[in-house]
Amino acid sequence: LVYDLVEPLHAADIADLIELFEPDERGILASAITDLMSSDVIAELNDYVREDMMEQLSARSVASIAEQLETDDAVQLIEDLEPADQLAVLAELDAEDRAAIESALAYPEETAGRLMSRDFVAVPEHMTVGNLIDYLRESVDLGQDFWEIFVVDYAHHPVGTCQLSWILRTPRQVSLTDVMKRDQTLIPVTMDQEEVALMFQKYALISAAVVDESGRLVGQMTVDDVVHIISEEASEDALLMSGAGDGDINEPIRDAYAARVRWLVANLGTALIASLIIAAFGGAIEKLVALAVLMPIVASIGGNAGTQTMAVSVRAIAMNQLTRANTGRILWREMRVALLNGVTIAVLVGLATGVIFTPMLGVVIAVAVMVNVVTAGLAGVLVPVIFERLKQDPAVASSVFVTMITDSMGFFAFLGLAVAAGLAG
Amino acid sequence: LVYDLVEPLHAADIADLIELFEPDERGILASAITDLMSSDVIAELNDYVREDMMEQLSARSVASIAEQLETDDAVQLIEDLEPADQLAVLAELDAEDRAAIESALAYPEETAGRLMSRDFVAVPEHMTVGNLIDYLRESVDLGQDFWEIFVVDYAHHPVGTCQLSWILRTPRQVSLTDVMKRDQTLIPVTMDQEEVALMFQKYALISAAVVDESGRLVGQMTVDDVVHIISEEASEDALLMSGAGDGDINEPIRDAYAARVRWLVANLGTALIASLIIAAFGGAIEKLVALAVLMPIVASIGGNAGTQTMAVSVRAIAMNQLTRANTGRILWREMRVALLNGVTIAVLVGLATGVIFTPMLGVVIAVAVMVNVVTAGLAGVLVPVIFERLKQDPAVASSVFVTMITDSMGFFAFLGLAVAAGLAG
Ligand SMILES: [Mg+2]
Ligand SMILES: [Mg+2]
Ligand SMILES: [Mg+2]
Ligand SMILES: [Mg+2]
Ligand SMILES: [Mg+2]
Ligand SMILES: [Mg+2]
Ligand SMILES: [Mg+2]
Ligand SMILES: [Mg+2]
Ligand SMILES: [Mg+2]
Ligand SMILES: [Mg+2]
Ligand SMILES: [Mg+2]
Ligand SMILES: [Mg+2]
Ligand SMILES: [Mg+2]
Repeated sequence: LVYDLVEPLHAADIADLIELFEPDERGILASAITDLMSSDVIAELNDYVREDMMEQLSARSVASIAEQLETDDAVQLIEDLEPADQLAVLAELDAEDRAAIESALAYPEETAGRLMSRDFVAVPEHMTVGNLIDYLRESVDLGQDFWEIFVVDYAHHPVGTCQLSWILRTPRQVSLTDVMKRDQTLIPVTMDQEEVALMFQKYALISAAVVDESGRLVGQMTVDDVVHIISEEASEDALLMSGAGDGDINEPIRDAYAARVRWLVANLGTALIASLIIAAFGGAIEKLVALAVLMPIVASIGGNAGTQTMAVSVRAIAMNQLTRANTGRILWREMRVALLNGVTIAVLVGLATGVIFTPMLGVVIAVAVMVNVVTAGLAGVLVPVIFERLKQDPAVASSVFVTMITDSMGFFAFLGLAVAAGLAG
Repeated sequence: LVYDLVEPLHAADIADLIELFEPDERGILASAITDLMSSDVIAELNDYVREDMMEQLSARSVASIAEQLETDDAVQLIEDLEPADQLAVLAELDAEDRAAIESALAYPEETAGRLMSRDFVAVPEHMTVGNLIDYLRESVDLGQDFWEIFVVDYAHHPVGTCQLSWILRTPRQVSLTDVMKRDQTLIPVTMDQEEVALMFQKYALISAAVVDESGRLVGQMTVDDVVHIISEEASEDALLMSGAGDGDINEPIRDAYAARVRWLVANLGTALIASLIIAAFGGAIEKLVALAVLMPIVASIGGNAGTQTMAVSVRAIAMNQLTRANTGRILWREMRVALLNGVTIAVLVGLATGVIFTPMLGVVIAVAVMVNVVTAGLAGVLVPVIFERLKQDPAVASSVFVTMITDSMGFFAFLGLAVAAGLAG
């Protein structure tokens, strides 16, 4: 029964279905539908879920799944295994697949060399459209998933690309060099996936040639794989800024704990700094308890304003929109937004406090909010920009620093101004 | 000079270059390179920058740019204009383009009907591969950017799709119905772009047929346009959760202010609730000022833990990974992570407080942190899930509620326990 329900589904849907089950039920489901558990289904599984399943299989079984996959998908299957398991699986592979997968694993994770597909169509310059069509019809060995043809010179350097639609629309006798586009986007094997993703977006690419250090064509990246990278890179920043690490709901509890507790401990550090500032004004608080009641407002508004600006800056940096050329302009833009926001909130808080407590306390909290929102705007731009210049991921570490700055400044400005105004004298 | 430097650049790069300049310098640059300012460059510009430039041109000029673009890009150009300007531009268009653009504008923003391309290749079922190739070579009118051919029946309903590579690898006499894939992903005109983006990712699509209410093929979506949607949808959540609205650095100051100040005012509301709770314990704080010093720690840790869980839940909801089927499992997972995090931080804070202040205060803050981290985990899952069930975007409103819950619970648990323990008696 289960089998009949699952049978008509796409591999990606079967994979999603398996993910919905509890980890210990997944094995049972998988054995109920063994012959629907194709390599394609396994390739579509979430990384963590797949890793978990692979760990329960023998090296021989993993190898036979890998052999049915395209190299890029087989690499994804194998790269997450423990080093010892990796070697065992590699030993079970046939020589050709092993060579391809080992060459991919030799490149660092998240680089084009690791991610590229080694199946692509490359033809010499002297061919005509007719030659090419005959060649494609006769070669049994080609994959089906190619969208462009790469034209290469005698040294296997790419000289141009042809969209398949151009070939189909051109008479047989025309030379490929007259159809191809010479101006093409080449991806070095060492390019990080983040940059690959930006290039595909920017130039609306469907596929692109990957070249090694000597400029030889060694693989291709296709957009169907790049969409996952685009989605991952674009969404990771929300998770990183919150300190949730990878943020995958299939991540084992222990890993999720390790990723998150680090940031909570860091947050504890910043909260201690804020506490020290409050402690310095302990006497003032004892005399005027309203200070303790109102101080979290100043810190909270500043924290929120800082997070807003930081989210905007981190996104702009990730999209290459915030660069050295325009940092000054963006900072000035954010300052103007901060002034408008600061004035609005300061007036609201100041009036309410003035009415409920004393006019002087209203003035103090209004000025403190204004100072903290402007500080938040500065920190929200400068902290990510500085991390970017230091070659650190601005999404990872900015939050802790921005929060530290806005919390400390919030308490310091409010309590300091209150004391200076003689309110706790 | 400027001209020579810009001339070899890709349209997308020229667009990026223009965006780097100050708004009032952009016009000057544009006039220095008038004949490089092709429609393609304008289509590649950031929405806000383009809108600004279009507002300075006559309806006639905008119309002539639109006429050179493909319909989907022309629609993007026109949809952002003021309604009156839109009508003026539409009136200047030739009849065919006007009809196409008006039909797109009749669909709501961010639906397939608005976004689809109206240029695609559809052929009848009885064709052979050879017929198709001849047809493609002879038709002058076809666009160049198609990656798949749609096969339709007599009523123009799609019955199958052929990748161009399948056609190129098949002998001329084979019938298209033997090459095409019947199982295809059809996109209704009314589908939201978010769902379109998920389908392209899930099924690794390069293009897909868009069908109207009666199932007739009316357009196609291609992955080069969908990558922008994927990137936008995946990254908007970080901006929405921070309360930064759209978060585009080219957004006019006034719009950025309006988007952000709303959330700051909302935050002010939640901060007031927290203040009321503190005020209720004013007497206790007067007696033991250490309470004022330590209370922000409990709120801050809870806020951070809540944001982590919320970011994970919002992402999982956006990717259709968190559904009714597994909400219970995810909640239980997050509870276990919260218990681990809570215990770790509670022990650290409790010991430090016990040493610096009194052991009893250490116990109180430890229990309060534990309670608040678990509350944060509950709120971080349940608040987004509830907004999703209420058909609200969980990324938009969750932050305010989660912060409200963790702030209030932080102050209440800590101050309440301190009083209950007789610490401020
Ligand atoms: Mg999946
Ligand atoms: Mg093989
Ligand atoms: Mg991986
Ligand atoms: Mg990277
Ligand atoms: Mg692939
Ligand atoms: Mg990143
Ligand atoms: Mg990354
Ligand atoms: Mg651009
Ligand atoms: Mg036209
Ligand atoms: Mg638009
Ligand atoms: Mg398009
Ligand atoms: Mg969304
Ligand atoms: Mg959206």
